[in-house]
This record gives sequence, C-alpha cells and structure tokens, in this order.
Amino acid sequence: MVAGDCMEDPAGSYFNCSDSERATFEAGIKLGSIYHQFVGTPLSHQNVDSLERAIEEGVKVQPFVEDVRVRIDRRYLREKRSPYKYVSLTANMLEVDLRVRYGGSEAHCEMKFVKELRYPLMRIREVTTAEVQD
Amino acid sequence: MVAGDCMEDPAGSYFNCSDSERATFEAGIKLGSIYHQFVGTPLSHQNVDSLERAIEEGVKVQPFVEDVRVRIDRRYLREKRSPYKYVSLTANMLEVDLRVRYGGSEAHCEMKFVKELRYPLMRIREVTTAEVQD
Amino acid sequence: MVAGDCMEDPAGSYFNCSDSERATFEAGIKLGSIYHQFVGTPLSHQNVDSLERAIEEGVKVQPFVEDVRVRIDRRYLREKRSPYKYVSLTANMLEVDLRVRYGGSEAHCEMKFVKELRYPLMRIREVTTAEVQD
Amino acid sequence: MVAGDCMEDPAGSYFNCSDSERATFEAGIKLGSIYHQFVGTPLSHQNVDSLERAIEEGVKVQPFVEDVRVRIDRRYLREKRSPYKYVSLTANMLEVDLRVRYGGSEAHCEMKFVKELRYPLMRIREVTTAEVQD
Repeated sequence: MVAGDCMEDPAGSYFNCSDSERATFEAGIKLGSIYHQFVGTPLSHQNVDSLERAIEEGVKVQPFVEDVRVRIDRRYLREKRSPYKYVSLTANMLEVDLRVRYGGSEAHCEMKFVKELRYPLMRIREVTTAEVQD
Repeated sequence: MVAGDCMEDPAGSYFNCSDSERATFEAGIKLGSIYHQFVGTPLSHQNVDSLERAIEEGVKVQPFVEDVRVRIDRRYLREKRSPYKYVSLTANMLEVDLRVRYGGSEAHCEMKFVKELRYPLMRIREVTTAEVQD
Repeated sequence: MVAGDCMEDPAGSYFNCSDSERATFEAGIKLGSIYHQFVGTPLSHQNVDSLERAIEEGVKVQPFVEDVRVRIDRRYLREKRSPYKYVSLTANMLEVDLRVRYGGSEAHCEMKFVKELRYPLMRIREVTTAEVQD
Repeated sequence: MVAGDCMEDPAGSYFNCSDSERATFEAGIKLGSIYHQFVGTPLSHQNVDSLERAIEEGVKVQPFVEDVRVRIDRRYLREKRSPYKYVSLTANMLEVDLRVRYGGSEAHCEMKFVKELRYPLMRIREVTTAEVQD
C-alpha cells in the first residue's frame, strides 16, 4: 500500500476499513481542521492572500494530502477606513478543493457555501479507486 | 436512506460516494473539529469536567452523530498553587470515542495518543454496513 | 502586592508598568482568548448552556480573574429540523462581563456587539485603583 | 486623540480609562488572539514561514497595532520522514514582539516561553506616554 506522498503508513495496523473509507476519513479531518482552526481570524484585503497560503500549506503538512486549494471570497471584505473596519473569517467565505489519496483510492472533496442549505457544506465530489494489478 | 438522527439528508444530492465512505468522512470532520476548535483552551482540575461536556455536546449538534464520549487525561493537569499553574489543552490529552451513522453504515472511530507513533491518532476502529432488505 | 486570587505574582519582575495597566492588559488577554478560542464552535439550543459554562470556567482558570459572566445571544440560534440547522458561534453573539484584579487595581471590562460600529467591541467600562494605606 | 494608524477612534466614547490603560488592553487582546487562534495549527519546516507571516499580518489588521514580529522556534520541528512526523503549534514555540499605540501612549509587549515559570508569558516590557504639548 502506497500513500499519497509515497511513504508507507506506519499507522496502517490501527485501521479497519477500506482504502476509500480511509481516504474520505482523512479528507474529513482536513476539512474539519481548516474550519475550526482558522474561522475567527481577523481579515482584510491586507492579509487575505497570506492567510490563504498559510491555510493551504498547513493542510499539505498533514498525512495523505495530494493537493489542496483554498480561496477566501473577497466580497465579504470591507474597505478599511476605520480601525474597526475588518472582518473575521467565517466558514461561509471559505472555498476549499481537496484531494486525498490513500493506497489505491483518491477522495476529491470540497467545502463551499451552499445557498439552498444556507450552510458551508463539506462534500465528497468523487471517490476513485485504482484497479489492482497483479 | 435514513440518517443517524432519523432525519433525511437534504444535502444528499451533493455527494457522490457510498454510505460507508460518507460515514467515515463525517466522522473525520467531527474529529478534526474537536482537535482544532478546542486545543489551546486553558485547563485545570476546576474546568476539566465542563470542558469535556462542552466538547461532547458541540459534537452532538453536528450531522449524523450517533454517540460521542470525550475524555481529557487528568494526568497532564497541574496543581494550581500559582496563577500560572494551569495548562492548555493539547491533542495528546484527548480521548474521543465517536460513532457516526449515515444511511445503512456506521463508522466507529477514535482519537487517542499512540505512544509508538508519538502522535494523537484519529482512527477508524470499524465500519459496519447493514444488509439491505428488499 | 496581592493578586486577585490572593496569590502573589511570581512573574511580577517581568513587567514594567502600573497595576492598572497590568489589570487592563490581563483583561485584554482573556477577552482575546474567549473570542479566538471559541468562535466557530457548533451551536444550537442543545449545547448553548454547556458552552457558556465551559467558556466561563476556562476564563476563571487564567490569572487574576475576579469574576466573569458569559452569555450567548439565543436569538441567533435556529430550530434544528434538519441535520444542517445549527450555527457556529460568532463574536456577534457573545456578551462577556469580566473583572480582573491586579494588585490594587480592578479593570471592569466587557465584550458586546455594538450596532453603531457593526463590531463586537471589547471595552473597558471602568478602572478602579485602591488608595494605598501606609 | 490620534490612534496608532492615524485614524481617530470611533469607539472612544465606549471607554473609561487612560491612554496607557487602553494601549495595554489592546495589546493583551492581540496576544490572546494570536495564542488562541493559531495554537493547534499543523506545523513543519514546509509551512513555518507562511504561518509566521499569516499570524503577523492577521495582527496588523487589528486596531492600533504599530508593529509586530512573530517567530516560531524551529527547534521544536521534526524532520518529516513519515506522514505523522509533524507537530502542532504550541504556545511554547511562539515568540511575539508587539507595539500598540493609543493616543499618546505606546505599550511594548512580548510573548515568550519563560523557563523559570514553565509558562508562555505575555508581558509588558514598557509603557511610554508622550508629554502633552499645548
């Protein structure tokens, strides 16, 4: 079994599930961590770029991440004409595209505000599992 | 399809995966959220009980949670004989037992410090899927 | 010098300021910590009480806190008729009344959403300093 | 009264304290926010630079900040030879140098782990208040 970053999984024996279940589990962890680590961060046009980069790079440090893109919706930002004219990051502003690979499976997931639900939904777009070759 | 709390899933159409992949995904979200929301909280013998309860109840608010138990390892706490003799919650102190049910599948997951890995591992203990009856 | 909880301050020599400046500094730390630790926590009518208690008790663990009351504005909560009908704690929902005492000074501070500023303002209501008796 | 960033304070009437008490209050808020927002962030040699920048820039967005420097102690980082060989940011790793100016006062503050106390101490190094000119 080969993990996304070509390192074997020293914790493999602690799991009792398929590769695809593991891939979606790991993806869920990363999306939950983005939300609950960074929501609340002070935000303006001055620091939105650096915060996007820091969130992305903080995800890449975690196990089995194949790729991640984080985008903060600038329409929520305010022009800073007073000391108090900035906002705090909320989940509704966050758009995340995430690919996690575990063994032969890849989970392509997303976080995005869904108007219909009025909810920043974390969702699984697709799970792909490679054919095993003998 | 019946979710853990007997409510249908109004977001079901946004997902493209099996019930078991969804269950582990949702479990990962909850474990990631516990870690990254609460790590850093000031902690002593005085507030350890209320923090455990607040974490548990904050998890139960989230979708598809069947059951959760949170335990903070008291061996890390200090006797408070000085204003600075308290600690901050770290992941290593946290033990979480979590059951998430989605449709016909249940994911039984756990977070616990693993000495061998020197790592607070979030893991899938078991995934069970009910036989579908026609 | 007697701190709020009747313990001397073993870190006193690291500070170069008056008692009243120290009291407001310590109060600022506590208000900043409430905001940035707990904003983002999942919230509904089910867990709002336990979260208020956990926040209060987490503040009391910290140095020089005389008293604190935390209130989350229930008007923001939603009736939970769907798995996604809950909210995340935002600063706008938080009302905090805090008293910090250091040496002979007490800072009475507050956090509350101010409509006029559209901002969850942390403010100093009053600083009182006891007359020194020889 | 002129705030640090040359904007007047539209919230001035909500405060009942001296400029120096306000400056230390605002400094405390910023230090508390750094700690409780970012502790727990996944960390390795790969993202330590971007996290330092994001923390600094997130502080500068907030009111009355004159200058801030954030440094994460690299001695805590691990070589990443396994998917699990990374750490989470703790307060003990953080070094912050912060200057807040309010009206005629400047508070020079710091956060740094103090071995003697075994505590990541937030402290006031110096408070300076300009002579008022008529």
